[in-house]
Amino acid sequence: MSEDSIACTPSPPYTAVIFTSLRDETPDDGYAEMAQRMDALAAAQPGYLGVESAREGVGITVSYWANDADAAAWKRVVEHSEAQRIGREQWYRSYRVRVATVTREYGHDKP
Amino acid sequence: MSEDSIACTPSPPYTAVIFTSLRDETPDDGYAEMAQRMDALAAAQPGYLGVESAREGVGITVSYWANDADAAAWKRVVEHSEAQRIGREQWYRSYRVRVATVTREYGHDKP
Repeated sequence: MSEDSIACTPSPPYTAVIFTSLRDETPDDGYAEMAQRMDALAAAQPGYLGVESAREGVGITVSYWANDADAAAWKRVVEHSEAQRIGREQWYRSYRVRVATVTREYGHDKP
Repeated sequence: MSEDSIACTPSPPYTAVIFTSLRDETPDDGYAEMAQRMDALAAAQPGYLGVESAREGVGITVSYWANDADAAAWKRVVEHSEAQRIGREQWYRSYRVRVATVTREYGHDKP
């Protein structure tokens, strides 16, 4: 899906949307193309701060937003709503969305 | 790391700890064994609700806790503190920890 990188987010608070899924994998089912399009579309939305994504059995995509309203607005963007519908019907065996407020952040980078 | 599954969490609010990392991969560096031990140790802590984990370039592990205090207590468990120290020095090129309060959750399972 997205770039192999850690999102560079501002000081908390901000909103994290944790999307965890199990796929029904079918070759050429349009998933990869749609995922790429949704990544690009998300990045163009107001309040978008970044995304992190990995799939290894389970798929985890965490998108970061300036606030809950911006995250909720992205959920309602028409093309994204359509992708969610196809996801429910075709691509995902199961998924969970958790909307959370980030209150603390810390980390470490090797010198 | 953990099981290929979606965590089964209670009704919000609860706490999510989003751990995103980039590895310095070295064969036989003890990482896999430590990760497995930490998963088992975490699962035995008070307030543990579940974990989801995937690595694909970037690694994302989200652990879920009954509340912030339980998540903070896990950070301070001695054996876990030691693992964090080795992680900073050896295993991770870079990492980010985000502590968040989950306020909404929804999902879908195929019938």
